[in-house]
Amino acid sequence: MAAVTSIHEKYMREALKQAKKAYALGEVPIGCVIVHEDKIIGRGYNRRNTDKNTLSHAEITAINKASKKIGDWRLEDCTLYVTLEPCQMCAGAIVQARIPEVVMGCMNPKAGCAGSILNILEMPEFNHQVTVYRGILEQACSDMLKTFFSELRIRNKQEKEARKATLSS
Amino acid sequence: MAAVTSIHEKYMREALKQAKKAYALGEVPIGCVIVHEDKIIGRGYNRRNTDKNTLSHAEITAINKASKKIGDWRLEDCTLYVTLEPCQMCAGAIVQARIPEVVMGCMNPKAGCAGSILNILEMPEFNHQVTVYRGILEQACSDMLKTFFSELRIRNKQEKEARKATLSS
Repeated sequence: MAAVTSIHEKYMREALKQAKKAYALGEVPIGCVIVHEDKIIGRGYNRRNTDKNTLSHAEITAINKASKKIGDWRLEDCTLYVTLEPCQMCAGAIVQARIPEVVMGCMNPKAGCAGSILNILEMPEFNHQVTVYRGILEQACSDMLKTFFSELRIRNKQEKEARKATLSS
Repeated sequence: MAAVTSIHEKYMREALKQAKKAYALGEVPIGCVIVHEDKIIGRGYNRRNTDKNTLSHAEITAINKASKKIGDWRLEDCTLYVTLEPCQMCAGAIVQARIPEVVMGCMNPKAGCAGSILNILEMPEFNHQVTVYRGILEQACSDMLKTFFSELRIRNKQEKEARKATLSS
């Protein structure tokens, strides 16, 4: 079990590296990697505002790259690592791609669909169910998001005050 | 209401044209168009096996094209027309893209996520809810799928018999 945890942490650190790329762009820092036979075959980070495209979520980008690498829409024998619980679209894509295993960092209580609002990954009604591991490097994944939103609030407040000052001058 | 139905049927016929392209490739015939200010800004048809990519569903392709056309991840003031009830991934993408209105042909009782297994489009727990119209040109949408699967069954049976004959000769 210790060895499994250590492997999960190793690849979650890679997902966190991807999340940092989103952070550097001013995007909500979410990162993802897909691993096949102990090799990363797809990487992705949130670029929704940069690309002006809702499909630029970390998981969708990683799934797209992994499919191209493997040459199959079925991502069997793969593990997907993501720093934040997936939304309804990404959880759906994981099931559609038949990914057998997902490892998550922190949960997203207001919008997550892998245990919070819905649990699309483990629904017996679908033709595929995913084995899910939660809380891997949870603190680091959560801290990055908290820092991002805290900085965003400060920036928004400063901009609002600057606008007020301009209007009253 | 008659005028609205007529517009919905007009664009569902365009979605059916897309579905026919999938049919011609031997793919499950599903088609989609996205309309903005009475113009089609995104088209898509199922190419999952052809592209070897799970993201090549009709709706995902149309959303990708529409986002590029509009230059925004938010597809506000748009209507998405699709011949078959969306899966969990595509229904999720529709909510993520904030599409306000979806018009569907026939339902998919075993896997659909816009009223059958789930109703992702109208969940009050999410930050966006979609207005949904069901059963537009339902018979035509359903007939195309039935013919496709009936032909597929015949093809599969013929192949099985051909293999048997080869083995026993």
